[in-house]
Amino acid sequence: MPTRSGSSTGTSIAFRYDVIPADMQTVAAIVASTGFFNPAEAQIAVELVEERLEHGAASGYFFVFAEQAGQALGYTCYGPIAGTDGSFDLYWIANHRDHQGRGLGRVLMQETERLIRDFGGRRVYAETSGRPQYEPTRVFYARLGFFRETHLKDFYAPGDDKVFFVKVL
Amino acid sequence: MPTRSGSSTGTSIAFRYDVIPADMQTVAAIVASTGFFNPAEAQIAVELVEERLEHGAASGYFFVFAEQAGQALGYTCYGPIAGTDGSFDLYWIANHRDHQGRGLGRVLMQETERLIRDFGGRRVYAETSGRPQYEPTRVFYARLGFFRETHLKDFYAPGDDKVFFVKVL
Repeated sequence: MPTRSGSSTGTSIAFRYDVIPADMQTVAAIVASTGFFNPAEAQIAVELVEERLEHGAASGYFFVFAEQAGQALGYTCYGPIAGTDGSFDLYWIANHRDHQGRGLGRVLMQETERLIRDFGGRRVYAETSGRPQYEPTRVFYARLGFFRETHLKDFYAPGDDKVFFVKVL
Repeated sequence: MPTRSGSSTGTSIAFRYDVIPADMQTVAAIVASTGFFNPAEAQIAVELVEERLEHGAASGYFFVFAEQAGQALGYTCYGPIAGTDGSFDLYWIANHRDHQGRGLGRVLMQETERLIRDFGGRRVYAETSGRPQYEPTRVFYARLGFFRETHLKDFYAPGDDKVFFVKVL
C-alpha cells in the first residue's frame, strides 16, 4: 500500500491512495461527522467511492486518505476533467470533526496537488454554493490558496449561485 | 411515436423524442456533415446516444430529432443538471449541413425549450470554447437567445477558455 508521510499536524500522517470497500463507511463517517453536508450530498460522496471500486481509475475518481494509526482522519476526491488538457476537479475535501483545525486540510491539499501535478495538471477547480451558509466552505478554499474566479447566477436554484474557485498549480 | 410539427422551414417538420439504435448512425452523420467537430467530439455525441439507449431516461440525456419525410435533419441533446433545481444543459445542437440556414436551429431550440419548461426547467446552459474558431458557435447561441454569462480562463487548455452561455426560460 503506497504511503507518504506528512507531519504538519504534529503526529505523523500517512497517505493512502488505494480505495477499499470499507471506504464507503469511512467516507460516510467523515462526511457525517462534519455536520455540514445534507443526506443527498453525503450519498454522492459514497457513490464516488462506489464508482471508484467498480471502475477503478477509469471512473475518473481518485482519492487521498490521510491516516493516523490506521484511522482515516480526512480525505480528498479529485480527478481530471474530461475534454480538458490539465484541468482537475476537487470533488471532495473533508476532515473528521475530531481532527479539524490542525492543518489537516492543508496537508491533504498539498498531497493532492502533488499528485495532480504528477498527472500533468495545471488547474484545480472547486465549486460550491454562493449561499450564506457556505461561507465557511468559501473561506476554507481561500485559505487553501484557491481564488474565486467567477459564478453562475441562480445555477443551483433561484437565489443559489454556483461559485467557481480555482487554484493554479 | 410522439411527434409535433413545426413549419418555419417551409416544409413540415416532425419532432421525434424516442431514441433508436439507428440514431447512433444518424447522429454521427449529422455531426460529421457540419465539418465543425473533431473526431473526439463526434465520438462523444454518439456515446450520449449509446448512454440513452442503455439506460433510458435515467441516463439524463434527452433528445429531439427534427425529421422531414422520415429523415433526421438535425437534433438536440439536453438534460437536467444533477443537484440543481431547474437548470438544464444543452449538450448538443446540430443540423445537417444540407439543411442549415433555414431556421431549423431555432425550431429545434424552441421545441427543446418547451420540453425543458415541461420538466420544470428555468435555465438552459450551453458551454463552448473561447477560441476564435468557435466564434460561429457563440454567434449561433446568441441568435438562439442565449447570453454569454461568464467564462473560466484557460479551462480547456492554456489559451482556451470555457465560455458559459445561458438562456433564462
